[in-house]
Amino acid sequence: MSVIRNIWNSRSKKNGNFFSEIQKIIGFKPKSIEIYQRAFTHKSLHKKDKEGHTVSYERLEFLGDAMLSAVIAAHLFKEVPHGDEGYLTKMRAKIVSRKHLNQLGEDLNLVQFVKTTIATPQFGANIHGNLFEAIIGAIYLDKGYTTCEKFIYKKVIHPYVNIDLLEGRVISYKSLLIEWCQKNKKKFHYEIYEDTGKDEQRHFAVKLHLNGKVIAKARATSKKKAEEKASKRAYFANQDKIDTRE
Amino acid sequence: MSVIRNIWNSRSKKNGNFFSEIQKIIGFKPKSIEIYQRAFTHKSLHKKDKEGHTVSYERLEFLGDAMLSAVIAAHLFKEVPHGDEGYLTKMRAKIVSRKHLNQLGEDLNLVQFVKTTIATPQFGANIHGNLFEAIIGAIYLDKGYTTCEKFIYKKVIHPYVNIDLLEGRVISYKSLLIEWCQKNKKKFHYEIYEDTGKDEQRHFAVKLHLNGKVIAKARATSKKKAEEKASKRAYFANQDKIDTRE
Repeated sequence: MSVIRNIWNSRSKKNGNFFSEIQKIIGFKPKSIEIYQRAFTHKSLHKKDKEGHTVSYERLEFLGDAMLSAVIAAHLFKEVPHGDEGYLTKMRAKIVSRKHLNQLGEDLNLVQFVKTTIATPQFGANIHGNLFEAIIGAIYLDKGYTTCEKFIYKKVIHPYVNIDLLEGRVISYKSLLIEWCQKNKKKFHYEIYEDTGKDEQRHFAVKLHLNGKVIAKARATSKKKAEEKASKRAYFANQDKIDTRE
Repeated sequence: MSVIRNIWNSRSKKNGNFFSEIQKIIGFKPKSIEIYQRAFTHKSLHKKDKEGHTVSYERLEFLGDAMLSAVIAAHLFKEVPHGDEGYLTKMRAKIVSRKHLNQLGEDLNLVQFVKTTIATPQFGANIHGNLFEAIIGAIYLDKGYTTCEKFIYKKVIHPYVNIDLLEGRVISYKSLLIEWCQKNKKKFHYEIYEDTGKDEQRHFAVKLHLNGKVIAKARATSKKKAEEKASKRAYFANQDKIDTRE
């Protein structure tokens, strides 16, 4: 038990105020902070509620997954009027893929809040996606469908769901950016240099210049990947301006 | 085209006022009747909207399926606090099984509204469940999540989702009824007689008497099935009174 308490305490200190950290992520004041604590409680703690039921984020994951599927379905229904049932199902599967959910959870660094007796590096990549689903479930439980829907629009749909990309009309963010620059007579270039970090693997870093100004940076294991990553970042940071659908 | 028009007209006459029929089923005034018309438009009509997109109920089915899954997930999350993620997933699968959805659609006789060039008897049993999902999608689109949730509670959860039965704590509705009668000192008996209908298969009909009054009737291919069916009907008609969970 002391192990658990130590982990809990050390994490509490490390994370500062859980309430305000969560508020920053979800974008509103939690009504019941207990629900969000549950969203980060790993089953390894063997925590029980008053009725003796196991408390862990897995049940919230189930709830969050269902809400995410519903909100994405409704969005695709409206945005892809030409797609039949099978096509919409496939598009949704792309958006809520394990890989994508893991990326979303990782971007929010949700793993920092996990309460567990297991060292977090031992978790696989899926922990990120699972926590992301759990926090969606927590929001639904705390505030209902509309707030949950807003969160999904803010964190998933607006930044990541681009119908053109999903439908393969845009092959890459780099090509999207080039097309936009040509159309709008902007000068751009990718500045690439070998990254001499501490990693064993060789990395490349890239700065994306637009009209002489660095608008995005990225780092990856190949030049091509780094360029794509930088273009993607530039795209999302300037989504209102860069858009080829006119 | 004349074939289509004929089918449409003959159905319109047969169905009377579509608006008021739909209102009866959904329990409120439709805001946009067009959405509900779409929920009964079969792809065989090759109907297109102004933008040239195919109009059929299949896309609404996709939307309704997602909403149904979300509402059932939220209900189970609250009602089954002891169930883990896997258990909740299994329970939901039972509730939204093809067989169950077909039964729900059939009970509402949704197939009467279908607009198609195919004779309805040629549809398989799944048409009932598909239309049921489509009408859920239509309600979501017409009135939003909360109304959609209310409809699902009224038509699926309240009448059919019994956690005790789903968890196997109640083996049958007959045993549930017997238990309740014994506890509440009620006299009951099943009156069974061979049904000499027009069917090729032999049928049994049953009347369920409670304190000398017939409270339910049913008909099936075996005595046992007919008794169970009558008990189920009696249970749902008197759900507020008959409940062994105390």
